Amino acid sequence: MELMIYGGTIVTMGPMGVIRDGALVVEGKRIVDIGKTSDLKGRYPRYERINAEGKVVIPGLINTHHHAAMSLLRGYADDYPLKEWLEDWIWPLESHMRGEDIYLGALLTAVESLMGGTTTINTMYHYMEDGNEARAFMEAGIRGVIGHVCFSWRKEDDRRALEELARKWHGRMGGLIRVSVDPHAPYTVDPDYMRELWEVKNQLNERYGSSGEPIMWHIHLAETVDEPKKVEEAFNVSLKGGVVEYLDSLGVLGEDVIAAHCVSLTERDIAILSRRGVKVSHNPVSNLKLASGVSPVPRLIDSGVTVSLGTDGPSSNNVSDMFEVVKLTALLHKGVNRDPTILPAERVLRMATIDGARCLLWNKEIGSLEVGKRADLAVIDFKRPHLCPLYNEMSHLVYAVRASDVETVIVDGRIIVEDREVKTVDLPALLDRVERARVELLSRLKEAGR
Amino acid sequence: MELMIYGGTIVTMGPMGVIRDGALVVEGKRIVDIGKTSDLKGRYPRYERINAEGKVVIPGLINTHHHAAMSLLRGYADDYPLKEWLEDWIWPLESHMRGEDIYLGALLTAVESLMGGTTTINTMYHYMEDGNEARAFMEAGIRGVIGHVCFSWRKEDDRRALEELARKWHGRMGGLIRVSVDPHAPYTVDPDYMRELWEVKNQLNERYGSSGEPIMWHIHLAETVDEPKKVEEAFNVSLKGGVVEYLDSLGVLGEDVIAAHCVSLTERDIAILSRRGVKVSHNPVSNLKLASGVSPVPRLIDSGVTVSLGTDGPSSNNVSDMFEVVKLTALLHKGVNRDPTILPAERVLRMATIDGARCLLWNKEIGSLEVGKRADLAVIDFKRPHLCPLYNEMSHLVYAVRASDVETVIVDGRIIVEDREVKTVDLPALLDRVERARVELLSRLKEAGR
Repeated sequence: MELMIYGGTIVTMGPMGVIRDGALVVEGKRIVDIGKTSDLKGRYPRYERINAEGKVVIPGLINTHHHAAMSLLRGYADDYPLKEWLEDWIWPLESHMRGEDIYLGALLTAVESLMGGTTTINTMYHYMEDGNEARAFMEAGIRGVIGHVCFSWRKEDDRRALEELARKWHGRMGGLIRVSVDPHAPYTVDPDYMRELWEVKNQLNERYGSSGEPIMWHIHLAETVDEPKKVEEAFNVSLKGGVVEYLDSLGVLGEDVIAAHCVSLTERDIAILSRRGVKVSHNPVSNLKLASGVSPVPRLIDSGVTVSLGTDGPSSNNVSDMFEVVKLTALLHKGVNRDPTILPAERVLRMATIDGARCLLWNKEIGSLEVGKRADLAVIDFKRPHLCPLYNEMSHLVYAVRASDVETVIVDGRIIVEDREVKTVDLPALLDRVERARVELLSRLKEAGR
Repeated sequence: MELMIYGGTIVTMGPMGVIRDGALVVEGKRIVDIGKTSDLKGRYPRYERINAEGKVVIPGLINTHHHAAMSLLRGYADDYPLKEWLEDWIWPLESHMRGEDIYLGALLTAVESLMGGTTTINTMYHYMEDGNEARAFMEAGIRGVIGHVCFSWRKEDDRRALEELARKWHGRMGGLIRVSVDPHAPYTVDPDYMRELWEVKNQLNERYGSSGEPIMWHIHLAETVDEPKKVEEAFNVSLKGGVVEYLDSLGVLGEDVIAAHCVSLTERDIAILSRRGVKVSHNPVSNLKLASGVSPVPRLIDSGVTVSLGTDGPSSNNVSDMFEVVKLTALLHKGVNRDPTILPAERVLRMATIDGARCLLWNKEIGSLEVGKRADLAVIDFKRPHLCPLYNEMSHLVYAVRASDVETVIVDGRIIVEDREVKTVDLPALLDRVERARVELLSRLKEAGR
C-alpha cells in the first residue's frame, strides 16, 4: 500500500517527538517518511490519503500480557475468592473449550483490541492444532506473540504443542506472528521441567528463530504474596528468597523473558530482574480485580527494569482496553505512593508503546513511529466532548481518550480498522458465533456434570 | 411524551430486579408501567416505540461530585505536586474565567455526561449571574444540583450569590434543577462562617425549599491526610480529632450534607458520619490522580453510611465518565484490601444509581426504574465485541460497558440522546466555542502576567 496520513498531530514516541500538522507516509509494510504536512504533501502525489485534521496519530498500543481466547468466558464469574473462582468456575468451564472456541475467543479479542488501537498482543493459552490463537490473529490482521502454556501435568502434550507451534507459526505473515514458550508459573511447572522448557526454547530458537525474530519466554511471576509458599508446597523445595531468586537459581531468566504481574517482589528479586534484563508486564486492572495488590512499578523502573502494560485475560479484567490500563497505571501509583508526580502521562504512554516493543524484543520494528519501522498505528479522533478543549495531546491520550475514539488502525501497513469498521472480519457474524459457542460451552459443562 | 421501550433487559435497581425481554412505559415525565414485553406490548398501541432488543436499560447514572465548569481546564496541567498544581496552574487560569466560560464548561460537561449515560450531576462551582451552571444544565436537559462554592475571603459575594441562586434556580424546569450551599472545605471556611452558612442553608430552605425538594449542603471533606493541620493553621484552632468531628462540633452535619472524598477519616469520624446521616461521594479517579489516597469505602458502608460515586471536576480526572468510576471502585477496594469479594458488581452499580439518589435526597423521584418515578434512564447497546458473549448483564455493566456504548438517554421523560446524538445542543458548534474560549482564557492569563 502507498498511503499518506496528513494534517494531524503525530505523536511518534520516538526521536521526532510530537509533530503538529504532521504527515506520515507508508509504502508496503513500512513507514518511509515523517514530517510536516507542508514539507511532505507535494512529494507523494498519487498516494492514497487520510486527512487527519483534528486527529492524533500514535503508534499502535502493545498489550504484553493476555489470554486472548478467554474472551469466551468474559463475565462468566466475578467477585469470588480466588480459589473458588478458579476451581469452581473458570477451570471447569475452560476444560470444555475446544480448538474452535479458542480460535473464536482469540478472534473476538483481536477485533476488540484493534478497534481500541491495540496492534500487538502477547498471548498465553493452550495451543491446539485444529483451532488456535495464531490462526485467529492472522485472520484479523493483528500482530502477536502466541504462546503455548505449559504445566507439569501434561509434559508430553506440551512438547508436541511447542514444536508444532514454532514450526508452523513462527514468522508467519511476513513476520506478523511470532511464538513463545510459556511455562504457566513457578508453582505449576516443577524445577526440572522449568529447566527443560528453557532448553526447549533455546533449541526452538536455533531451528526456527533468529536474533531479529526470537522465540520468547512468557511466564506469570510473583502475582501474589503467597507464591513462594505455593512453590514450596507444590515441589517440596525450600526457597531462600522470592520467586524471582528461585527462577534465577534454575537458570531460566534472561533478556528474552517477559514476566507478567511481578506484584510481590523482594528487593533482591528486583535487583535480579534488572541484572538479567527480564521484562515485566504490568497488569493493574487484573491485579486489583483478583485482589493481588499493586506492583512496585516506579521502583522497577528506577532499578532499570523495562516495564510494559497488559490487560491480562478477559476473565480478570474483563475487556481488552489498553487505554483503560494506561490511565489506571498513571493514577494508581500516584495514589498508593501519595505522590502526584509519579509516572507522568508521557512516561506511561511509553510503557504502552515503545517499552512494550522492547519487552517483546520487537523494538527495531514497532513501538514508535519512525522511518524504516513497520507501519503499526492508530488514528484517534479528537473532536469529542471529552477531548475538548485541547491544551496538551499527551494529557488527553493518557487521561481522557477512550478506546472508542480510535477511528483508523493500520497494522503492518494494512488498514484494518477504517471509520471504526473492522475490515478483516464480519463483526455481526462473529458476535453471533461467539454467542452460540457460549451456549454450547455451557451445555457441555452441564452434560459433564450429570 | 408517550413512549414504550420494549424487548430489552431492564435492570431496574429497584424491587423488580432484572427483567429480561422487558418493557418500560413513559407518560410525560414519569414511568407508568414496567413488566414483560409480552404483557405490556398490546396495552399502549399508539405510543412511540424504542426497540431495545440486544440492549440493556438502566437508571441514569448519578454523579454526586463535580465541578462541571472546569471542563474548560481539562488537560491544562497534570502530574504536578498538589500545591504547585493549584497555585501555579489551576487557580491563576481559573481566576480569568467569566460567566460565559462557566456556562460553556458546564454545557460541555452536561453533553459529555449525557452521552455517557449520566442523567444527574451534583456540581460545585462559582455562581455568576451572567452565566452559570444552572443555565447550561437546563439548556442541555440534564438534571442537576447546582451549588455556589463559599470561601471566608468573599463572604459578601457568597451571601448575594446564594440568595440569587436559590431564588432564581431552585426547582426550575419542573424540578429538574435544584441548588445547594457549598462551603468549599473545613480549611477555607472559618468556623463562624461555617455556622452562618448552615443557617443560610436552613433559611433558604424555609423560603425556597421543601422537604421533598431540599436545598442541599455540599462540601469537600477529609480529602487529604493533612486536612486537620490545615484547619488548625488556617483558623488558629486546635482539633481534638478528625475533621468530621470538628464539623460536628460546629453543628454543621446532618442528613442533607453530601461530603465529597472522605479519604482520611478516624474511627470516630466514621461513627459520626453514620450517626448524623451524612452522605458521602466517593471519587476514586481524582483521589488517585491527586495522590490523596484511597477512601475506606467498605468500612463506611459497613458502618451504615450511604456512599455514592462522583468523577470530581475535569482538572483532576479528566473526564466525566461514570462507567470508569464504577469499574475503578469495584477494582480498587478489592486490590487494596486484598479481598476479591469486596464491593461486588451489583453493589457498585447501586452506588452509581439508587444510592446516588439517596445521597441527594432525591430517591423518591430518581435512582431506580419504578412506576411513579421520573423517567431518567439510559439504553445501552450490548452488541459490541467487548460485551460479547453475555453471561451476566450486571458483570458487563460494571466491568465491561464503556460510556460510548450508551445509545439513548432519557431525562425527565424527554429523549436527550438518540443513537448517540445529543438533541438539545449543537455539538460541533459547542466544541468550536469551547476551543475559542480556551484561546481567549489563555490570552487573558498572558495579558495579566505582563
